[in-house]
Amino acid sequence: MFNHLRINRKRFKRDFDALAGIGGTKDGGVHRPAFSEAHLEAREWLRRTITASGLEFEQDAVGNHSGVLHSTDQAAKKLLMGSHLDSVPFGGRFDGPVGVISALEVLRTIQDNNLDLGVHLEVIDFSDEEGTLVGLLGSRALAGTLSVDNLINPRGGREALESGFRSAGISDPLAAKRSPETLLGYLEVHIEQGVRLTDAGAHIGIVTGFFGIRSYQLLIEGRADHAGTTPMDLRSDAGRGAAELIARFNRLLMDRYPSCVANFGAIRFEPGAYNIVPALAEIKVELRGPSEELLASLEADLFRLLDQVSAELGLTSSSESQACVKSTRSSKPIQKAFSQACETLDRISVPLISGAGHDAQAMSAICPSGMIFVPSTGGSHNPDEYAYEEDCFTGADVLLQAAIIFAKQCGEEPE
Amino acid sequence: MFNHLRINRKRFKRDFDALAGIGGTKDGGVHRPAFSEAHLEAREWLRRTITASGLEFEQDAVGNHSGVLHSTDQAAKKLLMGSHLDSVPFGGRFDGPVGVISALEVLRTIQDNNLDLGVHLEVIDFSDEEGTLVGLLGSRALAGTLSVDNLINPRGGREALESGFRSAGISDPLAAKRSPETLLGYLEVHIEQGVRLTDAGAHIGIVTGFFGIRSYQLLIEGRADHAGTTPMDLRSDAGRGAAELIARFNRLLMDRYPSCVANFGAIRFEPGAYNIVPALAEIKVELRGPSEELLASLEADLFRLLDQVSAELGLTSSSESQACVKSTRSSKPIQKAFSQACETLDRISVPLISGAGHDAQAMSAICPSGMIFVPSTGGSHNPDEYAYEEDCFTGADVLLQAAIIFAKQCGEEPE
Repeated sequence: MFNHLRINRKRFKRDFDALAGIGGTKDGGVHRPAFSEAHLEAREWLRRTITASGLEFEQDAVGNHSGVLHSTDQAAKKLLMGSHLDSVPFGGRFDGPVGVISALEVLRTIQDNNLDLGVHLEVIDFSDEEGTLVGLLGSRALAGTLSVDNLINPRGGREALESGFRSAGISDPLAAKRSPETLLGYLEVHIEQGVRLTDAGAHIGIVTGFFGIRSYQLLIEGRADHAGTTPMDLRSDAGRGAAELIARFNRLLMDRYPSCVANFGAIRFEPGAYNIVPALAEIKVELRGPSEELLASLEADLFRLLDQVSAELGLTSSSESQACVKSTRSSKPIQKAFSQACETLDRISVPLISGAGHDAQAMSAICPSGMIFVPSTGGSHNPDEYAYEEDCFTGADVLLQAAIIFAKQCGEEPE
Repeated sequence: MFNHLRINRKRFKRDFDALAGIGGTKDGGVHRPAFSEAHLEAREWLRRTITASGLEFEQDAVGNHSGVLHSTDQAAKKLLMGSHLDSVPFGGRFDGPVGVISALEVLRTIQDNNLDLGVHLEVIDFSDEEGTLVGLLGSRALAGTLSVDNLINPRGGREALESGFRSAGISDPLAAKRSPETLLGYLEVHIEQGVRLTDAGAHIGIVTGFFGIRSYQLLIEGRADHAGTTPMDLRSDAGRGAAELIARFNRLLMDRYPSCVANFGAIRFEPGAYNIVPALAEIKVELRGPSEELLASLEADLFRLLDQVSAELGLTSSSESQACVKSTRSSKPIQKAFSQACETLDRISVPLISGAGHDAQAMSAICPSGMIFVPSTGGSHNPDEYAYEEDCFTGADVLLQAAIIFAKQCGEEPE
């Protein structure tokens, strides 16, 4: 019955462009790390825009900014929609803002049409999604999965965290946890940051789940020898061990784990001189896969290969687990709502697993959560990332229709 | 006729131990980087010891310290013998001093016996052999192969060089160049820093030549992508390229170049994060081999493999030549003199190529030059390096006999 509703494209474009100018860089990107001056300015811009739209502005204990459109049913649950305004250093202007502006447009369109979906609607801008200080800070705090440990040893450093918190008026981030019974669900639009939608000729990717992530620091130890006087077969070359591991594991993964990925992102040899055989190789590696079972198997293969290479070359090795994110599945009812919305709008959708982590992944710990991607080009986390205007509008319209459908379903068949 | 002559073992041991105490570390090593306080103290010890022995002390323009025992033939050439007193940081106590003390003992033994070999004899301690500031500084300056460039961009940094030169009273290092016609030759004793002598059950290694060294900085360039959202087959992973290169080149070298060695000593990925595919890999590699022909072939194979790996993985690559040392051959007459000396002393000798650079290599540019190794264990450039007393004494006795034989040969058959 609301099939005809569409967001206001002109207003979307105006707001999106205004936001892109805050912390905008010459090459068309933005530089808005969490709680930087530009990010604080973008947050302030959103506060003003929410208030000017007649929505109720809120800041919670972790600095998440919200605009609420209340239902007349005071006891109704809240349906959240949003994304984030922070960027990686010198990133692109689409990663995050597309979702926030889309959600804002959904609320304003429903408000413009004087509709009441029987649920409270909330647009939310989550704090520090990109992890300048703590990855998925705002959404994990809200979902109650942020730990004291995350705050004591933040990846951005303790000092930067404290300074950022002061700038944004955050004093007790863990208090941002909400009660699950107040939440109906969470919906998000985001750019794909990949090529699968374009390759498939689809308008919308419906995220079925999120890759789990396991990361490790590997240490391979050999012996520092004179690189001129030590025959090759008498060396314990930790660097050679590292190279064999990386070369062979990439091949193994591509052969046997087509749905998984791995990245050897950093490496260091010690002592690190032209004329000394490396005594130590330190490697940072990250595994991602769609299920915990696959990840466990992949991890076992990594360690098996590490042992094998070490034995072959007379080396010893050890590993230390780093950050780990469990694989998660999107809410089926929300996936269904997104799918129906695409049908309504006559847009082609495809199911996708997300290789990247997003606020929707953190939100799935506290309420039904789902997400769609719109096509983008130019890679990810760089100024070249780009999404066509038309695709962003489509994303916002699908979000609008899905919110209507999902709210209606929840009203009809209580979960 | 001087077959019976032997060096004074007690005096050798006394002086060697005194020297080992200067800059000595708790673990039995020494820390005497060129022109450090401990090195200056060791130099001062040598000056005093030379003077106390009745030899004529000299310091040349690059800070080499010498003690001269003159022949009555004023017009005679000089036969130089020596090594160096500086060490790598936290190195061993044998690398260098064995050669200096042996040479000092040769002069003192000849002096004790009132002999005149018909040549001037000179014990020499070369400045900065290890390259704290400039590798083979003293011997290259004396041989005339040190360039202004070596001094402008010293590997130890310009500031450290100037400060070191001030401490040692060096103002014009290039003026240390000698006239070839004044030199009969150069002989050196050094520890092997390897296991070939022990494996062969030999007392003395006669160095037939020195490995040439070619070193390169390689750059492999790919594309920084999100390590979660980019499928494996769409990546241009510079790190994977580096790993394939290192793994495959080590295998190629061991298969096809049994007399050469290679060392991938340092590596760095950019941007260097767990979750970003490496856009750049920077590799430091060094090749060593016994001839320029083999080195040229090895270099061609390295570049061919670099091209091949780059093509396979969608990468680009480039290389920059770094320090390069030409392979050199020891003087045949000096090798022969060492060999005869071993026969005289009933000691087993084997011919060896030196994988490391030494002052004797630099000296071969200006005069006949040769070198012997005595067995050592515990590797190289660390406090564990060790040579048995008896082997050091043998090295000094072989040097003494070889000096006598070589001086006699040169007197009989002018070169």
